[in-house]
Amino acid sequence: MNDNLQVQLARNPAGVPVPEDFTVVTAARPQPAAGEVLCQTLYLSLDPYMRSQIAGRHLSGAVAPGEVMRGETVSRVVESRHPGFAAGDTVRCFGGWQSYSVHGAGELYRVDEAIQPVSYALSVLGMPGLTAYAGLIWQAEPRAGDVVVIPAAIGGVGATAGQLAKIHGCRVIGIAGSDEKCRYAVDELGYDACINRRTEDIAARLDQLCPQGIDIFFDLVGGEILQLASQRLAVGARVILCGLMAEYNSNTRAAGPEPGLWIKARARVHGLVVYDFEPRRAEFINACLPYVRDGRLQMREDIAAGLAAAPVAFCRLMRGENLGKALVKIAEEG
Amino acid sequence: MNDNLQVQLARNPAGVPVPEDFTVVTAARPQPAAGEVLCQTLYLSLDPYMRSQIAGRHLSGAVAPGEVMRGETVSRVVESRHPGFAAGDTVRCFGGWQSYSVHGAGELYRVDEAIQPVSYALSVLGMPGLTAYAGLIWQAEPRAGDVVVIPAAIGGVGATAGQLAKIHGCRVIGIAGSDEKCRYAVDELGYDACINRRTEDIAARLDQLCPQGIDIFFDLVGGEILQLASQRLAVGARVILCGLMAEYNSNTRAAGPEPGLWIKARARVHGLVVYDFEPRRAEFINACLPYVRDGRLQMREDIAAGLAAAPVAFCRLMRGENLGKALVKIAEEG
Repeated sequence: MNDNLQVQLARNPAGVPVPEDFTVVTAARPQPAAGEVLCQTLYLSLDPYMRSQIAGRHLSGAVAPGEVMRGETVSRVVESRHPGFAAGDTVRCFGGWQSYSVHGAGELYRVDEAIQPVSYALSVLGMPGLTAYAGLIWQAEPRAGDVVVIPAAIGGVGATAGQLAKIHGCRVIGIAGSDEKCRYAVDELGYDACINRRTEDIAARLDQLCPQGIDIFFDLVGGEILQLASQRLAVGARVILCGLMAEYNSNTRAAGPEPGLWIKARARVHGLVVYDFEPRRAEFINACLPYVRDGRLQMREDIAAGLAAAPVAFCRLMRGENLGKALVKIAEEG
Repeated sequence: MNDNLQVQLARNPAGVPVPEDFTVVTAARPQPAAGEVLCQTLYLSLDPYMRSQIAGRHLSGAVAPGEVMRGETVSRVVESRHPGFAAGDTVRCFGGWQSYSVHGAGELYRVDEAIQPVSYALSVLGMPGLTAYAGLIWQAEPRAGDVVVIPAAIGGVGATAGQLAKIHGCRVIGIAGSDEKCRYAVDELGYDACINRRTEDIAARLDQLCPQGIDIFFDLVGGEILQLASQRLAVGARVILCGLMAEYNSNTRAAGPEPGLWIKARARVHGLVVYDFEPRRAEFINACLPYVRDGRLQMREDIAAGLAAAPVAFCRLMRGENLGKALVKIAEEG
């Protein structure tokens, strides 16, 4: 059957991606060989790291023009030629931007039935959640009363980190790109305050909101905000280097803060790559499921309808216009 | 008695200090009040951090023109008006660049008699040693086989860190400013190799000597060498930010490496200020005394004779011309 809708990279984007950088094509539905499993994509996760992949510089490798875009998905097993899986199973895998994908059993992870809605396996209880948990809990080790600053406050990683920090008794300051996002951060996610990075003086607001300095800076953006935060660290601060949103659309790489700022603060700085924490995913889910169930940990999802909508949704994400974790719904669960 | 020779700061140096930035004066010998102790300086430690003090920007505070230069000393108690000390005791204190100083008992630390020569209380078993131990052992946590790179390889901190790294089974690469220093690092301190930063291509040599990347970079210099090392970190690397030798003579502050380099390496970066580890000094001395006794930990000392020689010795230190820990011998021990 020629029913495998795919999104391919048409060309390497210059600057902020536009929908014309992608092509929607129809390909033959792939056939599983012995030992393989055919999956139908239910939800596709759209993430900022994809901007690096299509520029050819992400740790996980490049996507070249003419190739199908990669991405993590929640998928349903349609046909299994491996004894470990059966038709109807719900799995997490890197199905990519397409309706159907074929995988070896080692590439599939069963989604815990306790994860509801199932899309949470791609957001608060998925890779963004694991990223937030690894950085905030395992690396930064928050203490009650710590002042935590999170740029990209309401994205998948930021929203999870912000709520986890509140659960751990921290004072949490967000930075986001619109008044609407800031209101959402404070009203829904429980941030103590949120700075609009487009309309407010970030330095002055940080001085006002963090008079004793910043204990934990969970960096998702790099650039100027990392510099401003590094100038305001409290002694004993922890800095988690996790993302470079400020640079994903650019070919230049900004230098980092002067080392003297980190010496002065006796900062402990961690480079975070979420793949390293894959072996601890169950530990993370066990810790966070109760918070999801009692409502202390939630995730607004910004869900585009249908695979053909993915390019536009991704471009919105890269312009910072999404509100919540960016996902694409590709097929019905039931 | 008007026999207290002192070195005062004459003016804030521009760039590399010159002897004319200092003045040698004679002042009255200070008198201890009740509860105080009069000390005679035996050895004065000269350290790069003093360059920051006389520029007015060190954590420990500024030295202004007309003030006596500060510094750590090994001193002998001449007269005690505190029951805890008696004439003849050997102590460590911040006596400064002068022959005599008066202190409250809380500012004096008895020098362990096991520390021989007594000048080691200012070098390998003193603050430089504690700095090296805290950074290498407590922060970087070396494992056998780790590749450790140490710029300023034969200074007080670097020489101690290099020898400790060898004791812990690491492969240790130094960077130093002359062939003579490099030979000393390899022949006497046991470095596996040492790069002459003035005559060799540091990047090419690091590539050659560390083909699997750098596991621990003990930074004492900042600037270009920090950048080159950050580009070559192994996954799981630790970076100790401890000094900024490249900038002490300058008013500008270089930016740090791009954060992406540290993310890629999953680096753990520690800002190190030795004062924080003062409570653990005894633990450090207990660990290192056996190494000093069995010869695995040694320290060449570059000892100037007499307080009047201190300005010239300090300027040599700041030009990188000393060979070993810079000290000034001010009075005989016996």
